[in-house]
Amino acid sequence: MKILLIGAHGTIGQAVASQLSARHQVVTAGRTRGDHRVDLADDASVAALMKAVGPIDAIVCTAGNLHFGPLADMTAEQFNIGLQDKLLGQVRLVLHGAPTLRDGGSITLTSGVLGIEPIRNGANATAVNAALEGFVTAAAIELPRGLRINVVSPTLLTESLDTYGPFFPGFETVPANRVALAYQRSVEGAQTGRVYRVM
Amino acid sequence: MKILLIGAHGTIGQAVASQLSARHQVVTAGRTRGDHRVDLADDASVAALMKAVGPIDAIVCTAGNLHFGPLADMTAEQFNIGLQDKLLGQVRLVLHGAPTLRDGGSITLTSGVLGIEPIRNGANATAVNAALEGFVTAAAIELPRGLRINVVSPTLLTESLDTYGPFFPGFETVPANRVALAYQRSVEGAQTGRVYRVM
Ligand SMILES: NC(=O)c1ccc[n+]([C@@H]2O[C@H](COP(=O)([O-])OP(=O)(O)OC[C@H]3O[C@@H](n4cnc5c(N)ncnc54)[C@H](OP(=O)(O)O)[C@@H]3O)[C@@H](O)[C@H]2O)c1
Ligand SMILES: NC(=O)c1ccc[n+]([C@@H]2O[C@H](COP(=O)([O-])OP(=O)(O)OC[C@H]3O[C@@H](n4cnc5c(N)ncnc54)[C@H](OP(=O)(O)O)[C@@H]3O)[C@@H](O)[C@H]2O)c1
Repeated sequence: MKILLIGAHGTIGQAVASQLSARHQVVTAGRTRGDHRVDLADDASVAALMKAVGPIDAIVCTAGNLHFGPLADMTAEQFNIGLQDKLLGQVRLVLHGAPTLRDGGSITLTSGVLGIEPIRNGANATAVNAALEGFVTAAAIELPRGLRINVVSPTLLTESLDTYGPFFPGFETVPANRVALAYQRSVEGAQTGRVYRVM
Repeated sequence: MKILLIGAHGTIGQAVASQLSARHQVVTAGRTRGDHRVDLADDASVAALMKAVGPIDAIVCTAGNLHFGPLADMTAEQFNIGLQDKLLGQVRLVLHGAPTLRDGGSITLTSGVLGIEPIRNGANATAVNAALEGFVTAAAIELPRGLRINVVSPTLLTESLDTYGPFFPGFETVPANRVALAYQRSVEGAQTGRVYRVM
């Protein structure tokens, strides 16, 4: 398969790239690194990426920014960061990307454990991740030509413990290579409208 | 209690207003009707509403617009309508409204059955409603001073069957007065972080 991986140089993206590239041609994209440059928050940029990449069998996204901070100080503008970037950014990949997929192709997005397990400072993350998990269930019933869509929801990665650990008291972590299996399952499997939780 | 009801003249809002006004002082707001004018999609407008209304015991929202249409034709701009209006609009009520609430006060938002039961043309609605249901679970653990937050998720209203029925094949409907009870339960009860589903 020819697979477009957005966010390929991130913590999750690197593990997904090495997992998938053993059997597939992986075309990488990111904001500052990769075969292609793209900003998910910019509609024209996403449209241009799809045009540049051409017919593909799968789109995988392991990118997207959120706002973390106390609810008491949060502004609507800050909350909108997650809506425009991680949420609408990944929705954009579907809207612009679906026509680029060959029959039976798939899209795999990324949410995260906060969608169902809120933490302090995480209101934006919970809303965005829950929205993405809802979105794939709805998009799955409308996609044509046997196209599939799923989302992977990992808990905190072991590799991210130093960076985000203090926000996740008592959460067990999962190594990136276990998370990468869920993306393989989505891309090479046959299900659609699924949330793959990796806990 | 003094209760601010946004969307008071809509199908659900009217039923909620008559249910709550039997025991409480209900201050109404809407885009074109009510004691106060407000546009949820406009941050300054929501801030001004809270300033005008002053200290209150509860905020109830039965307003918010979504985009309905086929996924295949949907643009990111259309998807953003629901994000800016029904989703970020109700989040705004929380961000600007929480400081306006007296200790122990409550906020009750509105999502809808599409959050967990996707239909054709409903991808934006499913994402927005799921986001709202996630958001209240996260906001509930951060609100100070005993403030509470819940969301009511009604299925299709019997009163809306003529307008939206064709989109909801085989869905049972619920009369507005039953839906209104869920808002009473949220406002007068003691729970927080709950999704009240009225099916
Ligand atoms: N790490 C965790 O423990 C964890 C757990 C659950 C969920 N998640 C979610 O998984 C996703 C990836 O997390 P991560 O820790 O792997 O992130 P990361 O290490 O920061 O990597 C993110 C990658 O995405 C790219 N990117 C970021 N914003 C972008 C944008 N607007 N447009 C295009 N590319 C963009 C970055 O490109 P550049 O490097 O070029 O900037 C980078 O390659 C996030 O949505 C995160 O919320 C992470
Ligand atoms: N009706 C149903 O079957 C049903 C079922 C499940 C969920 N819902 C949800 O419940 C909510 C209300 O539905 P409804 O059928 O009662 O709607 P509706 O009859 O159209 O009434 C909406 C009310 O909200 C106000 N409003 C709309 N957009 C606003 C904005 N941006 N700022 C401020 N006020 C705004 C309107 O004010 P003006 O009249 O002044 O414009 C009106 O009073 C919606 O979010 C809908 O998705 C409805």
